[in-house]
This record gives sequence, structure tokens and C-alpha cells, in this order.
Amino acid sequence: MFKKILIANRGEIAVRIIRACREMGIETVAVYSQTDKDALHTEMADEAICIGPARARDSYLNMQNIISATVLSGAEAIHPGFGFLSENSEFAQMCKECNITFIGPDPESMDKMGNKSKAREIMMEANVPVVPGSAGAIETIEEGLKLAEKIGYPVLVKASAGGGGRGIRIVKYPEEFSKAFETAKSEAKSAFGDDTMYVEKFVENPRHIEFQILADNYGNTIYLGERDCSIQRRNQKVLEEAPSPVMSEALRKEMGEVAVKAAKAVNYKNAGTIEFLFDKHGKYYFMEMNTRIQVEHPITEMVTGLDLIKEQIRIAAGERLQISQEDVKISGHAIECRINAENPEQGFRPSPGKIQRLHIPGGLGVRLDSAAYQGYVIPPTYDSMIGKLIVHGKTREEAINRMKRALGEFVIDGIDTNIEFQFEILSNEVFASGNFDTGFIANVLKINV
Amino acid sequence: MFKKILIANRGEIAVRIIRACREMGIETVAVYSQTDKDALHTEMADEAICIGPARARDSYLNMQNIISATVLSGAEAIHPGFGFLSENSEFAQMCKECNITFIGPDPESMDKMGNKSKAREIMMEANVPVVPGSAGAIETIEEGLKLAEKIGYPVLVKASAGGGGRGIRIVKYPEEFSKAFETAKSEAKSAFGDDTMYVEKFVENPRHIEFQILADNYGNTIYLGERDCSIQRRNQKVLEEAPSPVMSEALRKEMGEVAVKAAKAVNYKNAGTIEFLFDKHGKYYFMEMNTRIQVEHPITEMVTGLDLIKEQIRIAAGERLQISQEDVKISGHAIECRINAENPEQGFRPSPGKIQRLHIPGGLGVRLDSAAYQGYVIPPTYDSMIGKLIVHGKTREEAINRMKRALGEFVIDGIDTNIEFQFEILSNEVFASGNFDTGFIANVLKINV
Repeated sequence: MFKKILIANRGEIAVRIIRACREMGIETVAVYSQTDKDALHTEMADEAICIGPARARDSYLNMQNIISATVLSGAEAIHPGFGFLSENSEFAQMCKECNITFIGPDPESMDKMGNKSKAREIMMEANVPVVPGSAGAIETIEEGLKLAEKIGYPVLVKASAGGGGRGIRIVKYPEEFSKAFETAKSEAKSAFGDDTMYVEKFVENPRHIEFQILADNYGNTIYLGERDCSIQRRNQKVLEEAPSPVMSEALRKEMGEVAVKAAKAVNYKNAGTIEFLFDKHGKYYFMEMNTRIQVEHPITEMVTGLDLIKEQIRIAAGERLQISQEDVKISGHAIECRINAENPEQGFRPSPGKIQRLHIPGGLGVRLDSAAYQGYVIPPTYDSMIGKLIVHGKTREEAINRMKRALGEFVIDGIDTNIEFQFEILSNEVFASGNFDTGFIANVLKINV
Repeated sequence: MFKKILIANRGEIAVRIIRACREMGIETVAVYSQTDKDALHTEMADEAICIGPARARDSYLNMQNIISATVLSGAEAIHPGFGFLSENSEFAQMCKECNITFIGPDPESMDKMGNKSKAREIMMEANVPVVPGSAGAIETIEEGLKLAEKIGYPVLVKASAGGGGRGIRIVKYPEEFSKAFETAKSEAKSAFGDDTMYVEKFVENPRHIEFQILADNYGNTIYLGERDCSIQRRNQKVLEEAPSPVMSEALRKEMGEVAVKAAKAVNYKNAGTIEFLFDKHGKYYFMEMNTRIQVEHPITEMVTGLDLIKEQIRIAAGERLQISQEDVKISGHAIECRINAENPEQGFRPSPGKIQRLHIPGGLGVRLDSAAYQGYVIPPTYDSMIGKLIVHGKTREEAINRMKRALGEFVIDGIDTNIEFQFEILSNEVFASGNFDTGFIANVLKINV
């Protein structure tokens, strides 16, 4: 087992990783930007090394500095968390060359899944259902138009290297196609330096259902059930739950086995997530794979009893999975609310600033993963997520009531937050019914911002 | 189901009950002493009624005022928590007469278990193993001496009405008997107004193992596994865990069934705990029954997934148990550390005062039940317990490491606490081995204060 791990991240996920390491008896090295001198992860780690100025590209994305900090501190491994360098295969490769263990998959697997049209091709070869569309890249407008005609409108034109909503357009009618294709292509060129495009059927307001998988270095790959992340605002997850209200035992087994097949197709190792679109007819399609730990991993931990960060570390250290597929039992229901420093009444404008007063909910079935503390100044520089409130209950109904109770106890003064907005979601009848899709916030709550 | 419940308690247990009610959609009425105007339970409840001055006998023990507050607020039931009026059958009777549901057993069951020599008799009749000793009360010194000779020294002379270490003496040699008997008897007379005495074998440094039971009003009684509360200082529990490190499946079934038999023998309803002494030879003896919810109930919740306060409320409302004995599964390992405002280096002297800074541990498997907040002034009037830190892990080892990690994150400035003392217990090799008894703190840590 590793003696020392460097955590190339900040905020609650850095704290989360420090906690797992501490419980395993592993020393931790935090890295921090000048802005994060007083951040909780900087305070909590056994050592902390400043890696540059506030701007992420100068610090948390500065590969050279992070590698130097690792060598300097004598850490044997890097945990990248999520975001920042976590899906950067160049960084994973650099670690390899410096004899540092990157806690995640091989750079080759990352590359295969990172390129979306490439991933589609691999999935199709592996008999993993994908949204109807092009097998590989689409070179010309004519080729795209022909395909769109075949699969039927609306379609999406997408950049292979795309992400964060850039390089992507919905096309509803043939006459819109050529303009959309050109715009997305040039957007992709300037944003990602890669204008490879592909076309697929646009699945309107699907549910977002994803499967957590774990794979060791010896060919053992298991799935840990699903997470339903259909509550989204502008493609950003807001609230997640496990299990999905629409999942049956049989479908879980079927989709879980598909997820394992998808992971095996790219020789995947460590923790990862296969995201599916789930349409109104109960059909599911591979959307993409996240080759890292995810924000919403705690809900899977709550229903399986596993510690996913510890599993990641054990796998990276060369240990075999200690559990088999039969050992995985889903019990109860878990919900996660992302707590953001933002103002829902002003278009979800970020609300950085000082936390003047903080009172944290507690009691049975309540977990908080956060890097916030009373007196902490949330910088405007990074993500607005300041924590994740997670509950577990015996049933979905108990989990919903518990989350509402916990949100009601949560006091954060000095900044605006989305706590009341989350309460509103949980109090909605459509949400309670379980019968909703990714259009919930826009169409049911009528919030389009 | 009840629409409104009054909580006749304060501190973390009052908060715990408010939380359960809120999740069930039940309105809550807090009662508070003048000292507790700014207490968290007063703030959190839907209504709060002042019932008198700081001194408990004028407020939290003032039955008339509490009944009046109940009638005034229109609450249909009273949850007594633990301590205060929770084991007072007169109060339970008074509730009955006022058509208020007392959330607990009938006054008759409380009386039977409250009188220790009476309880012994009932247990012996029910074939529940008790410590060898007198069948009923011992009237004279001669009678006591004869019995002591028969069961062998050391013996205990105990007052039937005893509690809190009063009215009890250890007798090691025959020549000490008569003085000990007289002293304990007169102590009992003045403390409890009842000098009925009995004699039993003194079991030296046993383990303290107790079984949680649940019983509905329809004859269904189940056990929820055991708690090991052997880590004690002066007969006060300090740290509890579930399951017990010395428990086997077979023994759990055997003792659990004995616990159910004990409860049934007094026609017990609601949640209760059968406490056993567990000696070096693996023999166990009924010690007493606590006819209320206990401080350490959360560890049972963590390993069974049940919410015991909700179960209590449902039973009191006349619902049937929704689970049968076969449904009860013990999974993982839970530990509770009582967090006290006290100074272990100064003989555990209470340390009331203002909490200047509070940082609460979080993350996977960590639960805090507390009524503390930053800025709260702990009054000197009541118990020094300010919260309970509870962890759950897959194994005992993981739970220990998680608790150490969580204690390490806990910051309470402005008062003294036993956090480091708890850390010391958890770091001790004898504790880690699981091979210890109620003499652990005195004999292993060599703390006799």
C-alpha cells in the first residue's frame, strides 16, 4: 500500500480523499493555489504545497508544478479527484513516465473514452447500444444530411472532442443542418483544436441513468448499481438519487452487464461511470464514460456500503477487488443535493464571499461532504459547489423527507445558496412521483435560466 | 398517526426526536427551562413553551407544568427521551389519566422493572438468568450473611430502589457484611425513601452487553442485536459499539431470545433495553431493564438501518411492527463516542461555557447527534454530554479508524472536552484487540478518577 498520496484537487473532493487516506493510514499531501491558502483541504492534509496563483491553469491545471510537488514530497501516487486534470491522459502519461501512480485508468483507456466519436465506434463494436447515428466521424454536410434523413429529425451535430455544451447543436429540420454543422465545427476548432464531427439522433428529455463500475488490474469488473441524475439545469446535475425510481432488478442486471462490457471494451481499470440516456420507451443508449470518480459517488456508497475512494486507492496499489458481483447489494435509497453558492432568483448567479454563520444538519442518515467552515471565504475563482448533502433512508419516501428535514436545518449566512431551490424540487409532486426526466427543472418548475 | 408531539426533554435527544417527527410530518412542541431559551431544541421545534426555572426539578421534572404545556399546545403524545421523567411511572400514569399518550411502556411494566429486587424475582420466574443471590428482599443481616456464605464472596448488597451508584456496597469478607448492609440501607432510606435490600454475587469486571428490543401492542417482540458498553468510567458509559467484539451468531440468538422473554415477562411495549453482565467464562446474567430509549441507541440504528425513534412513535400510535425477527440483519460495525464538556486531566471536571468555535466532522459513515452550535453557551445546570459522534464501517477496524479520523477533525474551542481522551481509548491496543471489560479505563488506562 502507498505510504503517501498527493491530492491534485481542492474543495470537498480533496477533503473526501484526505479522509479516506487518513482512515487507511496513508499520509496526504495537499496542493493549493495562492487563493486556497486557508482552504480546508490545505489545513487538513499532513503536508501542503503551493503550486501557483489563483487561476486554475496556473495551479490546479499546472502539470509540471504538480509533478514537482509530488516528487518533492515523496508521494508515490496522485489522486486527481474530478475536474481539473482527472480526465487528462497527457497528465496520466506524465505520471507514468515519472514513476508516479495515477489513481485512475491507463491513459490509453482515457483517450478511447475521451474522444466521443471514437468511443461510439468502440461501443458499437462491443454491442453496447448507442444512440442511432454515425459510426465514426462525419466529413461533409452532404454525408451528415443523408444520415439525418435516415435516422430522422431532430438530430444532434456534435464535436468528438466536445464538452461543457460547446461544439454541439440540435437540428430540427433539414434546412437548419448546414448552418448548425458549420457553427459547431468552427466552435470545436477554436475551443478544442479538433473539429472532428459526428451526428446522432436527438433523444428528447430522456432520463439520465448512469452505472458505477469498479475494475481491478486482473480483469475483474463489477457494477455497483445505478444513479439517476435526471434533475439537471442546463446539463448540470443538481440532485442525484440511487436507485433510480424507474429501475427494476432485471433491468439493473441487464444495464449493469452492458456497463461492464463497455468498460472492458477499453480495458478499463479503477472506478468509472457509464452514462446512459434512458428514453420514454424504456430504451437505453450509451452516452459517454466518465473515466474518474464522480461528484455523485456518495449515493452509491450509501446504498452499497462501499467506500469508493478507498476502492480506487486499493486498485491503484495493485490489490484485487475484495468483492464479487454477487456481494453487491443495494439497500435503501440515497439522495444527494449539490449545495452551491449561487442565487437561484438571479439566474443562479454565483455568490462567492464569506460564510458568516454555518450550522450543519446532522442525525440519522445524514452525511455532509464539504470543505466549508464558518469564516471561510469562498473565492470567485472556482466552481460554486461548496458541498454535497447526502441522505440515506429505508425507502425513497423516507429519503425525501429526511433530505427536506436536513435542508431545513442547514444555515449558511453571508452568501446566497440553492438550499431553498433544492427544497422546492423535493417538495414537488412530480418529483415525488418519480415520473420525470431531464426536462424537469425547465418544464415542471418552469425555470429556463 | 399523531399530529403533534411534545418532547419532555432537552439537548441532543430532544433534537433527535424533533428530527424524527419532522421526517414523519408530525408537529413538535419543545419545552424549555429559562436557561434553555437559546438552546437548539427550543429553536428547532415548531412551538416552544417555557416550563420553569433552570433547576430540573422546577422544569424538566415538573410534571404538572409539562402536562399543562401538552394540554395547552394540543399535543396528543409526549416523548420523554431519556433521563428526567422517562422512567417515572407516576408521570406515565398521569399522562394516561389526562388522555395523553406516553411514548413508552405502560406504568405497570415500568414499576415492575424499576424495582430491582422485584424485577429479579420476575426474571427468575421467567427463567431469565440472574446473578446468583436472593430471590426477593433480604430482611435481616443474619439472612444476608447466610446467603452470602452460600453464593460466595465478594457479594453486593443493593437497594431495590437504587440507582446512580447509591444504596450499593461491595462486601469482600463476612466481617464487612453487617456494616455495609446497614450503611447501604440507610443511604437508600434517605435517597429513595425505600430501604428494601437484596444481596447478589459480585461479578468482577464483567463486560456490559445489552440487547435492544422493540415490542408493539399486539404481542410482537423482537430483538435488534446487542450493544457492548464495557468502556465505562465510574459506571458511566463512555464509548459503545455494536456488535460486541465477543458476540457469535449463536450467542446473539440465544441472548436475544432471553431478552425478548424478559420483556414479555413484564408485558413490555415500545422500545427497551435488557442489560446483561457478561463474565469471563462467557456466562451472562440479567442486570436490569431500561424502560426507555437509550443514549447509545444510534449504534443499533447504524447496524440495522432502523430509526428507533420513529419505531417508538409508530408503536405508541398503535401501529404493528413492520419487521419481523427474520428481517433484522446486523451489517457492519458502529461505534459511538459520547462527547462531554469536561476536562479529563482535571478529574473529568465539567467544563460549561461558550463554544467559541465549532467545526464538525463529516463524510462517509459519520453521524453527529448534537444540540451544540457555535456561540452556544453550555449551562452548568445539566448533564455535561454535548453530543454523540457515531461512525459506521464495514468492519470493526474500519469503524475504529473512521472514528479516529472523525475525532481528529472535530474542533470545539472555548470549553474543555473529552475528545482527546476518546482518541486515546480508540488508539489503545487492548481496545483494538476487543479483549477488555468494564475495568478497561481503570485498569488498562490506569485512570481511577
